[in-house]
Amino acid sequence: MNAVKIGLIGLGTVGSGTISVLKRNAEEISRRAGRKIIVVIAAVRDSKRRRNIDLSGIEITEQISDVVNHPDVQVVVELAGGAGEILHAVNTALDNGKHVVTANKALIALHGNEIFAKAQKKGLMVAFEAAVAGGIPIVKSIREGLSANRIESIAGIINGTCNFILTQMSDAQQDFKQVLAEAQKLGYAEADPVYDIEGIDAAHKLTILASLAFGIRLQFDKVYVEGITAIRSVDIRYARELGYRIKHLGIARKTRAGVELRVHPTLIPQRRLIANVDGVMNAVLVKADAVGATLYYGAGAGAEPTASAVVADLVDVVRTITTDAENRVPHLAFQPDCLSNDPILGIEQVETAYYLRLKVINRPGVMAAIATIFGESDISIESVIQKSASISDADVGAGATGDAAAEATIIMLTQNSLESKMLQAITAVEALDAVKDEVVCIRLECLD
Amino acid sequence: MNAVKIGLIGLGTVGSGTISVLKRNAEEISRRAGRKIIVVIAAVRDSKRRRNIDLSGIEITEQISDVVNHPDVQVVVELAGGAGEILHAVNTALDNGKHVVTANKALIALHGNEIFAKAQKKGLMVAFEAAVAGGIPIVKSIREGLSANRIESIAGIINGTCNFILTQMSDAQQDFKQVLAEAQKLGYAEADPVYDIEGIDAAHKLTILASLAFGIRLQFDKVYVEGITAIRSVDIRYARELGYRIKHLGIARKTRAGVELRVHPTLIPQRRLIANVDGVMNAVLVKADAVGATLYYGAGAGAEPTASAVVADLVDVVRTITTDAENRVPHLAFQPDCLSNDPILGIEQVETAYYLRLKVINRPGVMAAIATIFGESDISIESVIQKSASISDADVGAGATGDAAAEATIIMLTQNSLESKMLQAITAVEALDAVKDEVVCIRLECLD
Repeated sequence: MNAVKIGLIGLGTVGSGTISVLKRNAEEISRRAGRKIIVVIAAVRDSKRRRNIDLSGIEITEQISDVVNHPDVQVVVELAGGAGEILHAVNTALDNGKHVVTANKALIALHGNEIFAKAQKKGLMVAFEAAVAGGIPIVKSIREGLSANRIESIAGIINGTCNFILTQMSDAQQDFKQVLAEAQKLGYAEADPVYDIEGIDAAHKLTILASLAFGIRLQFDKVYVEGITAIRSVDIRYARELGYRIKHLGIARKTRAGVELRVHPTLIPQRRLIANVDGVMNAVLVKADAVGATLYYGAGAGAEPTASAVVADLVDVVRTITTDAENRVPHLAFQPDCLSNDPILGIEQVETAYYLRLKVINRPGVMAAIATIFGESDISIESVIQKSASISDADVGAGATGDAAAEATIIMLTQNSLESKMLQAITAVEALDAVKDEVVCIRLECLD
Repeated sequence: MNAVKIGLIGLGTVGSGTISVLKRNAEEISRRAGRKIIVVIAAVRDSKRRRNIDLSGIEITEQISDVVNHPDVQVVVELAGGAGEILHAVNTALDNGKHVVTANKALIALHGNEIFAKAQKKGLMVAFEAAVAGGIPIVKSIREGLSANRIESIAGIINGTCNFILTQMSDAQQDFKQVLAEAQKLGYAEADPVYDIEGIDAAHKLTILASLAFGIRLQFDKVYVEGITAIRSVDIRYARELGYRIKHLGIARKTRAGVELRVHPTLIPQRRLIANVDGVMNAVLVKADAVGATLYYGAGAGAEPTASAVVADLVDVVRTITTDAENRVPHLAFQPDCLSNDPILGIEQVETAYYLRLKVINRPGVMAAIATIFGESDISIESVIQKSASISDADVGAGATGDAAAEATIIMLTQNSLESKMLQAITAVEALDAVKDEVVCIRLECLD
């Protein structure tokens, strides 16, 4: 069979990794795909820059339009990232009858609905395994491997930067800012880390996973997003004492009321496998009615892990190129005319357990007053520890002041409660005279 | 589109689970597959027996030939297990132009090469996701999700019975026979458990995984197989003390010399994720050149987890039914004319580290004599603990006798060594006057 010819947009980390993998493993890949996959053209921002990879046989251009309009290109591989100009390029590629493979989670999470509709109409494929959790074949596993199941929930460590920072804060007992600086030095965090540490990157990925799992349209704007910047090492320490780890999770759960979509730091019992996924590694825990719990673990970023997913998509496209469009795996796992309109729940409609840390004046009746407030809000307390104020101000962050002798820290774990009730209770607790500072509140999921 | 009609062979645990899942999730499944999947006929051994599932609309027969010759059946789903009669049925189904889905690992491991050749010639599919690790989509992940990679090694906990027994021996500090009896009571071990505890079931699965990973023909007869019957709880305890867990692993590794295929108990550092996979759960760790390490975890057996894989295969078959045979995912991941002839290594050609337990007479010069033997065999010692003989005879199994006061137990971890050299060294050590009983030897893999 003839070789399949592809055009690349972007020769950064992932683009270079993709070329390396395609060249190094050319023989294995064509033994699997049944035909060769050849890069004929690549668009880069600066064609003069020297690159550390072998680009022989590849036409280099600075014009993206040269790639998407190239007459020989059958598949456009988009690895530039970003949206505006890239969205236009992807649309043009589809208009020109070319299949698309992309690693661009923002593009899919924000514009996937329109892109897939166009692809569907033209009988083309848009593949995006690399957009979620790097090299872990999680899109394929959910979309094809679990197709027998009603999927109940997804909980994922899907941002390596956050997981690295939380792991380091836990292992080295360092505070957030120290670890962030170290992560930037090691290349695990960008110079501008907002996208990762504020949870936006995880929210893009969660948007995609939830659509695949539940058969709903991509709805990034409905995701509740909280990053890790408010996590103090003292809370990681208390959580450990209680038998928990704090992880930054993307959670999607189908309830009778609708779909929960939320990204936030979460306590997890340390005996769970996912609680032991450390450093920059990613893992996704999927619960489904027939198979039960399955977990997928691997590198969520990096040149070659991401290239692994890009090339797997290419092999899929090559294999499927002759199939009628209606018999292919649908983009969002479910047939496009079968997506459902389940409502996405607001965070206040979500039920979880909570870890709370309160600073109080240590005098009689304080605990009773707090317990009464929680009782009136129908919130059950799972466990309480009281600590005298021996912890240094630096540990608990800014705002810690006053007479240490008279103060105490209360750490509480609650049972499941509606977030709206918890917020009410916290407001009431913070209004108590004896309660100092804001109550620190981190969600807790048992994931059992 | 028209519904796809299927015929079932076997209505045991997995057969009943498959019908339950197909009925309960009919809407979700057809939203994904684009058409309905309907069971029209099922062959059972005893058609009079009452079953706890809704069989309405399904013709029940005691003749397998009624299923494989049924004019409306497009896909035969084989869930009866066994080989002889079933091999004939699968061949007849293919001769009649029907696709096949099976959960039968023995059938695939022993007869897959011929079955796939026939299917290939007829342009039909034989799908077998359920044959390995139950509901975990490991066949799909290796065959499609990692198609960009040169796969280096696979290490899997792929027999739930063995993992349950080893976990219980570790947690409850009970001995093998006690735990086996308990496992049989709980239904986690068969009345005749040989198939599981001697490693044959794991060897079937490893045969399949290795072919998918390395592009070699199925070669069950070349697998080195060792079960868990020789494991004593004392060794599990010593291993824990040294920071290791003992797991029953299937290991396939590609080396320059050839392919290692081996099933045996193995020490693993306890900080590895796979060392924490407990009870009846399964997990497969795959290492590959581009993606690095990925791990897949879930239920490896049971009615609905296995049905999850069976139905996922059905959806794949339904989606692929119009694709040209040459553009489909090949049965063994690689195109049939591209399989390689890498030699499978004998266990004596394998290099691993080892845990050794020796009972010795506690007198000067013994350790030196042992160390000299290992040194002469080029085997480096990683660590040694010596214990005075305070452990009861029951703990160390039959054959422990003699004057406890004069005896000591030596536990050694070695660095990597060729198995043939280790066997030589052990023989020499056992010949020493001061060494009593046989040396207990368990392989150790760092899996890093």
